[in-house]
Amino acid sequence: MCAPHVIETVKKRIHRRNLLQAAGATTAAASAGCLSTDSPKTGTAAQNPVEFSRVVDLTHTLHKDFPAWFVGGQEMTSRGGRVFTPPAIVDVKPQFEWEHEKVNLNQITYWEHVGTHMDAPSHFSEGSSVEEIPAEDLVLPLAVIDIKARAATDPLALMTLDDLKAWEAQHGPIPERALVAMNSGWAQHVDTPKFKSLDANGKHRQPAMHIEAIEFLMEERNVVAIGVDTFSFDNQHSPGSDVHYKWLGDERWGLENLNNLDDVPPIGATIIVGQPKIKGATGGPNRVLAMV
Amino acid sequence: MCAPHVIETVKKRIHRRNLLQAAGATTAAASAGCLSTDSPKTGTAAQNPVEFSRVVDLTHTLHKDFPAWFVGGQEMTSRGGRVFTPPAIVDVKPQFEWEHEKVNLNQITYWEHVGTHMDAPSHFSEGSSVEEIPAEDLVLPLAVIDIKARAATDPLALMTLDDLKAWEAQHGPIPERALVAMNSGWAQHVDTPKFKSLDANGKHRQPAMHIEAIEFLMEERNVVAIGVDTFSFDNQHSPGSDVHYKWLGDERWGLENLNNLDDVPPIGATIIVGQPKIKGATGGPNRVLAMV
Repeated sequence: MCAPHVIETVKKRIHRRNLLQAAGATTAAASAGCLSTDSPKTGTAAQNPVEFSRVVDLTHTLHKDFPAWFVGGQEMTSRGGRVFTPPAIVDVKPQFEWEHEKVNLNQITYWEHVGTHMDAPSHFSEGSSVEEIPAEDLVLPLAVIDIKARAATDPLALMTLDDLKAWEAQHGPIPERALVAMNSGWAQHVDTPKFKSLDANGKHRQPAMHIEAIEFLMEERNVVAIGVDTFSFDNQHSPGSDVHYKWLGDERWGLENLNNLDDVPPIGATIIVGQPKIKGATGGPNRVLAMV
Repeated sequence: MCAPHVIETVKKRIHRRNLLQAAGATTAAASAGCLSTDSPKTGTAAQNPVEFSRVVDLTHTLHKDFPAWFVGGQEMTSRGGRVFTPPAIVDVKPQFEWEHEKVNLNQITYWEHVGTHMDAPSHFSEGSSVEEIPAEDLVLPLAVIDIKARAATDPLALMTLDDLKAWEAQHGPIPERALVAMNSGWAQHVDTPKFKSLDANGKHRQPAMHIEAIEFLMEERNVVAIGVDTFSFDNQHSPGSDVHYKWLGDERWGLENLNNLDDVPPIGATIIVGQPKIKGATGGPNRVLAMV
């Protein structure tokens, strides 16, 4: 169920996309790899399997010590002033056990935004939850923006509009209906204190996205989703979570804690977001794969 | 970490696969759509996106009333004789709320084997848990075996060896490294009592797989995984869970509660299993998509 303002936002976006796609609706679909361009269309299902060279796992393994913006089991105060003690990052509690049942089965508990995961629009807005995102939006052309050189010396580095323009100068316009991912090199730090890079005040630091880059992607390009290899689209440069509110508030979604972005090309891969379809979820752990 | 007997099982399977692939290792990969056959291989990543016509969502939306082999919140006795009171099928408990935090975030709790989900080897063996399954095994050619006509009149219908042979007579051998899915038409019953089809003793009934069909797939074909559109590979014809023990006990895995199998062709689609990579999980809710 979509609230009226959500429907309105989507209508506006469709209108804007249509303007961007002046050459007709099929242009975007073809650019997105949604239509084969070298075989005749008969209206029936293709009988040949999809062709690809390899599968890249863009997902970290999620476990109780995985680094997050909160600490499992430790009291915290929300921005609303309420006090919470979140559970373990992921609590895997054996129920049926081989010894007793000759079956294994766990009870799983987590707060949604841990590990490699989606932020659905509803995480930072009154918009859609995960089950309302169309399946065709979960398979997208992937564009990877590399900011590793800068991030190596600055844990608060941002993916800027200049980074996007430099990428386009080299690779051409960001593909229609892309997922644009920032590769800051942070995935390699996941098991070390560097991942959180706590400052003198105990505040975490990690590369993130500049609001101007986000506005460009929203207004000037037809981009479905964003992704980062850190645990947030925002860092201390946007303490009010500007990127989250701007992007998710526009009925869009993104991925955090991506892995292995070094193993995919800057352009040419197809990303598949395996998001469990839990009714009302504001995001949560998923499996993200790339086909190259 | 794999137990020694698991490593042994996998070694045997690799050996058997090599025998099946007498024409060389690339045969299977090509049949599986893992290698492009019409462009030269240079050893570098492809620069063209994967081509497909459409994405089909093979996943049901998971919610607290989704039908399962247990009832959420209701006491049950395990086959090991222990008494459990499982949680809700999926418990989505709001923590941060828009009203207070201007952010939404839920705590999620579930037993693993609910909704559209994977059974990993470790569910019915001491084998691998979900994070140990290689990513390349999560993208597979899909073969769909239709038993809807028989299931329409028999809630205990089985996908038999004859069904597989009839399918092969029409479509050719099951593709190398396939996922073989049974379409019994059960997905359409998911919101009705028909899905569980309780008998006079209150025992559930649903179509499942015949052990002979499973043995054929294990011994005579190179199949990675199985899938059903019901909540179990076994039914009252195999009360000892023969299919689960045979298939999962051989370091294999499968999917239960698949949706929308009517929307994919019997052969030619590629299935993508978006399994969250939770360390130690014996399976659990996922997102299953098909590219056609």
